[in-house]
Formats: sequence, structure tokens, C-alpha cells
Amino acid sequence: MSGLKSWVSSANGDTDFPIQNLPCGVFDDGNGARVGVAIGDMILDVAAVDHGQDAGLFSEPAWNAVMAAGRDIWAALRARLTVLLSDEAQRKAVEPHLVPQASAQLLMPFRVTEYTDFYAGRNHALNVGTMFRGAENALPANWLSIPIGYNGRASSVVVSGTPVIRPWGQVKSADEALPRFAPSARFDLELELGAVVGQSSEGMVSVQQADDMIFGYVLLNDWSARDIQAWEYQPLGPFQSKATATTISPWIVTRAALEAFRVDTPERERELLPYLREPGPMLYDIALEVGLAPEGKRETVIARTNYREMYYSAPQQLAHHTSSGCAMRVGDLLGSGTISGPVRESRGSLLELSWGGSEPLRLDTGEERCFLENGDTLTIRGAALGDGYRIGFGACSGKVMPSIELPDWAKS
Amino acid sequence: MSGLKSWVSSANGDTDFPIQNLPCGVFDDGNGARVGVAIGDMILDVAAVDHGQDAGLFSEPAWNAVMAAGRDIWAALRARLTVLLSDEAQRKAVEPHLVPQASAQLLMPFRVTEYTDFYAGRNHALNVGTMFRGAENALPANWLSIPIGYNGRASSVVVSGTPVIRPWGQVKSADEALPRFAPSARFDLELELGAVVGQSSEGMVSVQQADDMIFGYVLLNDWSARDIQAWEYQPLGPFQSKATATTISPWIVTRAALEAFRVDTPERERELLPYLREPGPMLYDIALEVGLAPEGKRETVIARTNYREMYYSAPQQLAHHTSSGCAMRVGDLLGSGTISGPVRESRGSLLELSWGGSEPLRLDTGEERCFLENGDTLTIRGAALGDGYRIGFGACSGKVMPSIELPDWAKS
Repeated sequence: MSGLKSWVSSANGDTDFPIQNLPCGVFDDGNGARVGVAIGDMILDVAAVDHGQDAGLFSEPAWNAVMAAGRDIWAALRARLTVLLSDEAQRKAVEPHLVPQASAQLLMPFRVTEYTDFYAGRNHALNVGTMFRGAENALPANWLSIPIGYNGRASSVVVSGTPVIRPWGQVKSADEALPRFAPSARFDLELELGAVVGQSSEGMVSVQQADDMIFGYVLLNDWSARDIQAWEYQPLGPFQSKATATTISPWIVTRAALEAFRVDTPERERELLPYLREPGPMLYDIALEVGLAPEGKRETVIARTNYREMYYSAPQQLAHHTSSGCAMRVGDLLGSGTISGPVRESRGSLLELSWGGSEPLRLDTGEERCFLENGDTLTIRGAALGDGYRIGFGACSGKVMPSIELPDWAKS
Repeated sequence: MSGLKSWVSSANGDTDFPIQNLPCGVFDDGNGARVGVAIGDMILDVAAVDHGQDAGLFSEPAWNAVMAAGRDIWAALRARLTVLLSDEAQRKAVEPHLVPQASAQLLMPFRVTEYTDFYAGRNHALNVGTMFRGAENALPANWLSIPIGYNGRASSVVVSGTPVIRPWGQVKSADEALPRFAPSARFDLELELGAVVGQSSEGMVSVQQADDMIFGYVLLNDWSARDIQAWEYQPLGPFQSKATATTISPWIVTRAALEAFRVDTPERERELLPYLREPGPMLYDIALEVGLAPEGKRETVIARTNYREMYYSAPQQLAHHTSSGCAMRVGDLLGSGTISGPVRESRGSLLELSWGGSEPLRLDTGEERCFLENGDTLTIRGAALGDGYRIGFGACSGKVMPSIELPDWAKS
């Protein structure tokens, strides 16, 4: 497969979207929103090509129906699209259904049913724990046994390009007796990968079954208001600090496209309980980077890391999620947790990069950042690097907008 | 209104469902699931009566479409049904569309979009805090400023009557070095009221706007595995301990039906920030009780309390929920938090009733309980008591079933 070429010439050069990728998105070129797959700098209008008896799966502008149809359908679709886009004999029939990415708007690729976020990166947990509880108590006692997760808010998940408005919230510094209602002054990113659940479950599932349920992966930025979080999160966890927005990439890279890039999770420091043990490699070698561009200025890459840094894989997280009997549904989204590597340059949040705001980050433009400023555009990029091609996700981007003017009823 | 009678004679006696109530449910009498309102011991098949141009709102077996249609539609429907069920002249046309409750199965009254649970009862927070952190640190520092909440799992919300299977999970006692995977041995109830969000929002809403968005209320039991919770909840809050099941009553009592029972929240011990201040009374005087019946035995009422014991109202919780800009949607469900009164007999969980398992509760049958046993049926009942009538919710009930046999892949 690695030598396969497409008759779409832009798919064979420097692109996130070679024939080996075929990620799933939703686009609108002015003729209505519909499902598509990226190929080079084009989008194939998927509903416009022949799918035989499966045609009904492509009629809504979301991939949920395809996901619900099951793994045989996923495999058949991938095989069909691979032929259509690589076989020169198909070109005449298929080419009219290509739309330039440059002339299309990319929309949410699926309806998010429920959203769960995890805390499964060891370096991130160590960094944050050290800042808040000291180096000796950095990792919570349960951390090496449980892929720690919490439920997030599906209504706040948005597609790349959606502006992100700085939130208001309750904040209180250590020297204040009472909280104030104020715009977050410590607004941050979290570099993550999101797993898209493509099959439902009732009752407990194994790690292998969980892997089989995953349709694909997206880049994910879980925007976080650190000052709101610090005041609200005890005893029941983050709530409004994580509810402003979670941005995902417009393309779901399917599990099939990532198959060649599987890697093992790191060696276990504590043996896992049997229900969490992996039957094979379930992380992926996906290079990730974060760029920050101040308003009107060029971008600085502020972090480079890799998804293989995670301690728990998405199938482990999903298996744990079902351990209580919790039903999972098509369209559920699982955030990996912040992906930080072992060195400063590989940290996936400004909280870590600026060490709690105490070590400002110097951008290439000369400006400094502890947390995000209004006008900053944050962009996550990621790709698995194959032999002569790369499997990319496209950009996962958002610009920070000033907080809204406070309504009269909320003023003191 | 309080003197109004129905031509359905059972609606005028000892019933949760007089003409003043008209709660919204979904039933199946063998002829398919459809929306209905309870009246005495009958259900009116709502879609079968004439709604003019609004007829399309009643075609699916869920109240979401009606909720989305907005408050004018809610008021018009209530007025129309009140006439149909009180005016003797309507009897001949309407009576054929009554179905005995005894011959119908009650189903989920609405599709739950997202589920949020709060921690807004002062007595409950004090009791739990005292047990876990000691009397001096019982209330978290933020508690008097924030209606503390966390996102729950919508896929686990079930209707009254659904069996509840005791969950497996990671547990670790203080004298164990490592966790075990075991059935929860401290499985508990939480007596709550649920607010059903009937209108969507973008951006911050006031407490008054939040109140206007609420379609109605249900009884709610947030089943909780205390041993799983104790091991998992630091630092990001409860997750699998709350994901097994949340049971709601089959009837949504509308806000309109509760209007006469509004009461103020208790006096503030700390002044609230302006965005949380209430323009009027937003709690309700709703008497609540919990019954526990061991397998094959009669029920003991183990707690009696009242929704007016809460420190924060549902509109305050909903306003706080939107403070970060979080979008709310039709069908969102907000759990009040456990409703405990000031005395032992008014505590809304076994954790509190048995004081962490140290003071077993004696049932009328002679048995003792610290936490729930297999075969126990737990039933919450509630009603607002009017002048000569009561506005009830029907039973919110669930029977605890033994945990599943562990699959081979999860065995040590």
C-alpha cells in the first residue's frame, strides 16, 4: 500500500492527504453541507459516487450513520474509495465530484454524542502534580492504576476555525478572601488526540473490543481556563473551566489509515488489572506540534511532541469507561489527555510551558506568553510519517477572541 | 385552579395526577410508544387529540419536540388539555383516547441530551464533608460561592422500573496497597430532583432566563458506588462510580404545575456574585420520601425530606452552567444534588443515613442496611401538596441486581 499513488496529482506530493489516508470530513462549497474525504488538495464528494445499497449512509452531513453501520461497511468503503481514487480508469467518472479544499468550508465531521476527557499523559500529570502538590506527591495514588477521566460537555465541541471567546468565570487568587467574576486571565490550550467511538456498547468491553469500536482519531484542543479551574475543581472536578470550547480537526483519520503506525504503550510501572491489559500495540506514532501566532504576527512553534508519549491508549480508556456498565454510543468522543513529552519543548499546555506562569515563553516575534492573549491563533498539527507519505489530520485551529461585555444583570 | 375537577373521576381523589398536574410521559400499551399525560389512574394519548397546526410536535415518543417548540406552545398545550379533561362536553370525544396506567408500560419521557449533576444541598455537603475531611473542613472553600457541579453520563439515564446492575470497579481499602477489581460493596442511592432543560441557549443566561428555560422536573436517583468513587475521584471528580445508572421518574411535572409551590432558597451565608442572585423564589415545596424493600419483603421508608432544603435552585445551577459560554440544549438534565434535611431521618443517601457504614439502619422487617443489597428495591416518591390536591411525580424506582459474571479477559 505504501507505494500506491492517486490520479489526483496533489495527493502524491507534500500533503497530509495521500491515497493512504482518506480521512472523513464534512464540507460546504456553497451547494450544501455533505460528507467528503480529503485527497491531496481536493475533497471527494462521497455521496456523489456510487455506493450501491449503502447509498443511504451518506445522505446526512455527518459520519454518524456510516459509523453506526459497522466495521464491514468501514472496510468496504475504504476499499471502494481507494480504487476510485487510484485507478486511472475511474478518473473520468469520479473527477467531476472533486471539490477544491480552498473553495470549501469544513464543518463538524460528526455529531458528538457525549464527550469524555482523560488525564492519561504521565509527563503532563507529573508536571501539573508537581506544580500543585509538590514533586513528592505529583502523581495521584490512583494514577498508575486507572486511566483517570471525567465527563466533558459535548455541546462545547467545535470544528477547527471556530473563534473561541475568552470565558468569564469565578476566580480567586490566594490573597483574596472572596471570588470575583472576571474574564479568565489564565486561558490555556491542551494538546490532545481525540478518539471517535464508532460503535455502541452495553456493559463491559475488553481492550480489544474497545479498539474495534474506534472509528478514527482527530486532533483536539481542550481549551482550559486555569484560574477558573483552580477555584472550582474541588471536590468534583473541572466544570466551567473546560466548557467554553473544545476544538477538533475537521478530518477524522480512520483507524485503518493509522494501522501501520501502531506502537506499544510505555513499560508499566505498576502492573495493570487484567481488564486494562492490552493484547497488542494500541498507541500510534503521530508527530504533533503546536503553533501560536499573535494577532497579525507570524507563528512560533511552541511545542513538539508525539502521541506515543501517552501512558494509556484510547482502547484502554474506552474499556475503563465501560467497566461500571456505562453504555457507549456512536459519536462519543474521548480526549486522550494532554500529550506532553519529557522535555520542556514537548509540553502540551502553556501551564506547563510557562511552569504555572512563572517562566514566560519567548516567541520568535519577541513577545512573551505565560497564557493566551486575545488575538492569538493556536494551531495544532499532526501526522504519522510513512515511507514516502504522511497521514495528516489538517489543522486544528482557533483564535482567542475578547470576552463578551458583561450583561447588566451580572454586574456588581 | 385549585378547585378545578376532571370528568376523569380517579383524578379527583387520592392521586398524584389531578387536573392541576398533567405531567408528561411516554407510554406503550401494546400499540406502540407515544406521548401521554397522566390524569388520575389513566393516561391521555396526547397525539390522538386535536392540536391543530401543532399536531406534528406529538408524533415521536419523546417530549423533546414539544420542549423545543417553546414556552408559548407549552402554555397553549396546558390550557388545551385542561379544557379537554375538565369540560364535560369534551368527554365523549376524548374518553376513547384514555389508556389505563395499569395496562401501559412507561418509557423514558424524553431523550437526555447531556446530564449534569450538582452538589447543592448544604446538609448533604456538610455530612459528606464531615465524614471525609472532618467537621472543621466539611464545606469546601468554594461551596458557598459556586453551585458545584460535574458532568455526568447521559447514556446511563434510565426510566423508573429499569433494573440496576451492581457495578464492578476498582476499589481499594485503606489497608490494601493496590486496588482490586470487584463488585461495588458500597452501592448507594442519591435522592435528587432533576430539572429538564426545555430551551437551548448560547452564551451566558441570567437566573431569570434560566428559570424560563426549564420545562419541568423529575424525581432522580443518582446511583453511586461509594467505594469506586473514593478510589477514583481525585483529582478530576467522580466518573465510573456514577456511570452505572441514574433513574428518573416516568413523568415530567411541568414548571407550570409547580408554580403555586415556589419557595425561596435559604438565607445566604455568603453574598452571591450578581450573576447568581435570584429575582424571586425558585425552589419548590416538594415533600420527598425514599422507601427500601428487601427482596420479597415489605418496604420501609428510610428518609423523608423536602426539595426546599436545597441551598441553590435549578435556575441558579443552570445560569452557572452557562457562565463560561457553555451552550445548553433541549433535553439537558440537571440533577439537584442529594437532598438531605437537617436531621438523620431526612438524609438522602445511605452514606449519610448509616454515617459512612458505621451506623447500620434498621428496617421495619428487622434487617439492617449500611449500603444496598442485591434484591433491594429503592423507590423515591414526591409531591407538592396543594389545597385538596397533590402534584405528584409517580414512583422513581429501581431494583438492585447482582453484578454480572466477570468475563474471562477481566479475570486475574
